[in-house]
Amino acid sequence: MEIAKNGPQGKPRIRIKDEFWDRYTELVRKTVIPYQWEALNDRIPDAEPSYAIRNFRIAAGWEQGEFGGMVFQDSDVAKWLEAVGYSLEAHPDPELERTADEVIELIAAAQHENGYLNTYFSIQEPGKQWTNLHEAHELYCAGHMIEAAAAYYEATGKRKLLDVVCKFADYIDTVFGREPGKLRGYDGHQEIELALVKLYKVTREERYLKLAQFFIDERGATPNFLVEECKQRDGYSHWAKRKMPIPSPEQMAYNQAHKPVREQDVAVGHSVRAVYMYTAMADLALLTNDQGLLEACRRLWKNMTRRQMYITGGIGSTHHGEAFSFDYDLPNDTVYAETCASIGLIFFAQRMLQLEEKSEYADVMERALYNNVIGSMSQDGKHYFYVNPLEVWPEASEKNPGRHHVKAVRQKWFGCSCCPPNVARLLSSLNQYIYTASADRNKIYTHLFIGGEAQFELAAGRVAFRQQSRLPREGYVRLELTEVPDDAFSLALRIPSWCYGKAAMKVNGVAVAYDVVHGYATVCRQWEKGDVVEWEPRLEPQIIAANPKIRATAGKVAIERGPLVYCLEEADNGSPLSALSIIPSTKLEAHNDDGLLGGTVVIEAEGRVDEQASWSPDTPYRPFAPSQPKEPVKLRAVPYYLWGNRTPGEMTVWIRACHE
Amino acid sequence: MEIAKNGPQGKPRIRIKDEFWDRYTELVRKTVIPYQWEALNDRIPDAEPSYAIRNFRIAAGWEQGEFGGMVFQDSDVAKWLEAVGYSLEAHPDPELERTADEVIELIAAAQHENGYLNTYFSIQEPGKQWTNLHEAHELYCAGHMIEAAAAYYEATGKRKLLDVVCKFADYIDTVFGREPGKLRGYDGHQEIELALVKLYKVTREERYLKLAQFFIDERGATPNFLVEECKQRDGYSHWAKRKMPIPSPEQMAYNQAHKPVREQDVAVGHSVRAVYMYTAMADLALLTNDQGLLEACRRLWKNMTRRQMYITGGIGSTHHGEAFSFDYDLPNDTVYAETCASIGLIFFAQRMLQLEEKSEYADVMERALYNNVIGSMSQDGKHYFYVNPLEVWPEASEKNPGRHHVKAVRQKWFGCSCCPPNVARLLSSLNQYIYTASADRNKIYTHLFIGGEAQFELAAGRVAFRQQSRLPREGYVRLELTEVPDDAFSLALRIPSWCYGKAAMKVNGVAVAYDVVHGYATVCRQWEKGDVVEWEPRLEPQIIAANPKIRATAGKVAIERGPLVYCLEEADNGSPLSALSIIPSTKLEAHNDDGLLGGTVVIEAEGRVDEQASWSPDTPYRPFAPSQPKEPVKLRAVPYYLWGNRTPGEMTVWIRACHE
Repeated sequence: MEIAKNGPQGKPRIRIKDEFWDRYTELVRKTVIPYQWEALNDRIPDAEPSYAIRNFRIAAGWEQGEFGGMVFQDSDVAKWLEAVGYSLEAHPDPELERTADEVIELIAAAQHENGYLNTYFSIQEPGKQWTNLHEAHELYCAGHMIEAAAAYYEATGKRKLLDVVCKFADYIDTVFGREPGKLRGYDGHQEIELALVKLYKVTREERYLKLAQFFIDERGATPNFLVEECKQRDGYSHWAKRKMPIPSPEQMAYNQAHKPVREQDVAVGHSVRAVYMYTAMADLALLTNDQGLLEACRRLWKNMTRRQMYITGGIGSTHHGEAFSFDYDLPNDTVYAETCASIGLIFFAQRMLQLEEKSEYADVMERALYNNVIGSMSQDGKHYFYVNPLEVWPEASEKNPGRHHVKAVRQKWFGCSCCPPNVARLLSSLNQYIYTASADRNKIYTHLFIGGEAQFELAAGRVAFRQQSRLPREGYVRLELTEVPDDAFSLALRIPSWCYGKAAMKVNGVAVAYDVVHGYATVCRQWEKGDVVEWEPRLEPQIIAANPKIRATAGKVAIERGPLVYCLEEADNGSPLSALSIIPSTKLEAHNDDGLLGGTVVIEAEGRVDEQASWSPDTPYRPFAPSQPKEPVKLRAVPYYLWGNRTPGEMTVWIRACHE
Repeated sequence: MEIAKNGPQGKPRIRIKDEFWDRYTELVRKTVIPYQWEALNDRIPDAEPSYAIRNFRIAAGWEQGEFGGMVFQDSDVAKWLEAVGYSLEAHPDPELERTADEVIELIAAAQHENGYLNTYFSIQEPGKQWTNLHEAHELYCAGHMIEAAAAYYEATGKRKLLDVVCKFADYIDTVFGREPGKLRGYDGHQEIELALVKLYKVTREERYLKLAQFFIDERGATPNFLVEECKQRDGYSHWAKRKMPIPSPEQMAYNQAHKPVREQDVAVGHSVRAVYMYTAMADLALLTNDQGLLEACRRLWKNMTRRQMYITGGIGSTHHGEAFSFDYDLPNDTVYAETCASIGLIFFAQRMLQLEEKSEYADVMERALYNNVIGSMSQDGKHYFYVNPLEVWPEASEKNPGRHHVKAVRQKWFGCSCCPPNVARLLSSLNQYIYTASADRNKIYTHLFIGGEAQFELAAGRVAFRQQSRLPREGYVRLELTEVPDDAFSLALRIPSWCYGKAAMKVNGVAVAYDVVHGYATVCRQWEKGDVVEWEPRLEPQIIAANPKIRATAGKVAIERGPLVYCLEEADNGSPLSALSIIPSTKLEAHNDDGLLGGTVVIEAEGRVDEQASWSPDTPYRPFAPSQPKEPVKLRAVPYYLWGNRTPGEMTVWIRACHE
């Protein structure tokens, strides 16, 4: 196995330095990673223990005890290590690296002689390995460990964990496959597929790519592996702890295994599983030039983002199975919109951009990132939403069981802590989402406007520049070229959907025309060192309407400004928020409020408030009085990502439109 | 035991003969009762067997086999017999009576020597009697059998079933009580309490009244009986079939046993249990002159009907526990509003009217009856809604699990068939809900405008009259006195809430003034035989608004006409219904459509339909265009009780109000 010391050649080097995002990356580095380390070691007071490190110690034989936590608890350690890897790449930290190395020693000690690695089956059900792929997340945990190893290796050059996961992957390759005696199966929770692609990219070992391809190709084939496996177990369910009826292949839609992936065209089932799978499909489409997979990715992308996505970039309309429901079913109050699902959506968007540079992928990536994802985290980095609602009535969250899953207040790191470590690994690797470059075509795409330094190796030679961005506060981006090749190359800047085509470019202070190619402002020229590109996508607050097929938003509008979706909070607008309506022809006034929520741009709008004084609390219904006065009121909207950081109260993204 | 041959003296004789209601009572008699008989005997093709009659045969030793159905399956036989009793009273039917007598023989044969009667415990868990009051519905089933016996005895004068239940009640009286060695408990599902009051009324045996009082008084006392009983079972749950954590007394709010009933002031928990209990509380308040109970009834009535009741008279906002949630939480789409709960609400209203003649009780009774209750039944009497939604999107009912409980199409008689037999017994005893009479005060109240013949014994002497009513089609009622005493007496006619005080009375063609006492138009005079009272409450279609605290109806209005709530259906108005809005200042036009749904009054209104043509199905969101044309449209509303009798489609009661 021959691997370049610091990752493959030609890998762009991107370092973020950005007014808006530095807060988040620092929060991850200084708070989230250390806090999560405490959580993994069961040292958070009043929080359910994680057991995650302890499980590895028991599996390694360093400690006696029972397995604790969920069957997929190992993945928390992996996600933490992955985030540590990204963080170390940007900010070397010898003490953190030492801690990580110790964890890696522990993981290595828990690995079986044959390469197998999973503390649940090592401790709790030895001998039952690979008997419940449907429920037990074995390959899912393997996938996360592989992702961690790739990230840690790329950051530090240290091979220890990479060797561990290669050995594990090699073992998995002996267990799964089409050859006689091998399991012709796949995991109930997709993740190994995209991880094996990463392992292939780091190691260039074809067999990891082929194994990923095998899992994707087998999924949903007939006879249905998950159904047959369930029969082998006599229907025994890990979660129910008893025998259950054998499910039908159709019921495997929850796991996106109801039909072969190339035949799928509607996003169904558990939304995190779905987007992890789509990500791997896009990876494989690119690496194996698989047109069938590409077509399926395009269809699934379109269905998901155009018919099943909330305006905040959230996906998953129901908490039953944390799942998609069906086209245009986007209830705001019983929503799921899990943080992890939006993170997976960002993964998928990133891979689609590698396949084809179309701005709609980046538009969705930005939407999910600036709204659903960062909105999930509190300003202190220690509290999280798993469910990201668009409408909250705290009393209903508490007293109506159909809304118990919707929390009005971010929760302390959960026992099942999928979302916070996922946020940490995304934010600490955000540099990977900003650009793509085509070395052959000598073209660099800027998808996200996040400041920092960037360096690319094109066919023409090395390009380096510094991006400065005032987003999301202002629509101003500046690129200063610090290194250029002798030959011409292209810069392609995304024309964000929210500027509606209104974006001006200057080069060295002079307005220039640009070509628009798939939503990117493209300029090809012989650049000079020191050239400055200024990019000003118009950033105006905007009233947004939703497709009339989306029943839940009928008669309502939302407010956006640039990448940010806005919301009304009770703290600013009183209660009930449902008594408020907005005049859609209103001039939206955006202004800085440096004192609010760490400083942000608030938007004020003319609205009306329904007359309430004449209603006794004990009059439920009465004749409508046409002359009932509606008082004018100033509505005050704040960015959605900041909601729930004050006194708990009502919140809504969608506001009734009135026409007065 | 001395009981008058044909029920107690002074009982009014009411016989319904009414254009609107005869359809329903005939449907019950000619279709529902025979169909239910087939169901009880497992003879409905493609329907889950009931096992109900078979269970009795097995318990009686006439057949071998296992118990089938729910633990409370016996109550289906009881409810059927009760409906048969009411039906025979109005329409003698020797063949039906013979069938019923045979069933009663069977029931008697299944009774234990000591009086105990319950097929589940007789067959399935002998020796486990009275060990799981919390879950096993033992006294609940007893209560329904008592109600059946009372009804059958009053209809036929036959004592057989009455003797059976008296023997059973006497036995229960030896098991439950405050004396040493007795169980100081009560049932998890209230029902025995109101049944024992009925048994007392028929038999005049004080101990039945005292036993009812005991159950009501013990409920929610400390230590909590249901919790202690659960500890005795080591937490074993009948439903979960395993040990469960011991619940807290607070969790007994589901059974309204979280605190003593006199201290309850908010309707909580399972809504059917709640209203059955409130009914018994009102019964006892009247019979024992218990001011504390009366006050509790008033508080609970007020909370329930003014803050937790749908405009259709439905109660229960969540399917989780078929329960109340909290004040003003009345979601239209995830609603429960179980048919049985509205029937229990009608029971409670009837009892409150016996305590104090205030029209609001009758207003609610009428609202629940004409909307939620009859709306639950299909026009063929063989299909039922258990859940009665105010907003339906059939695709969501099918594909969003949070709405699976909301059906877009009435279902065939279920395995757990609580609602259809409850509808049958209510409709076949509807004559008991129309009037109350105060013999001492020589006053007859007309609460519901349902035609027929009525006869009362007042202190002044016998009064008889014939009511004719054109409701709900027209606001015209006519009473013709056919027998009058020599002395004066009062007629009190309800001024229905929907006429907003506009109701004209004529006597013998001459307009007369009337006193308004607690919402009743009251005239006291020396009446003559042949006097005709005409009563014309104004019946105009009306736009109704809801309290702004009810978030789910913000910005929306409903249409009512007289006692009927209206709704929009997709069959008349297209899809999506959410794209429609109504101009609240519109003139509502009501007209007969004899061809529609068996002939009904439809209401047309001016509305607007959101522009949809410019929306691609793949554009979820876009900037709001203030100039977007809204097309005028004629909205067509039909009575809510008739919804879902055509091609399945969307339905909504609440319509967005627009102001154009």
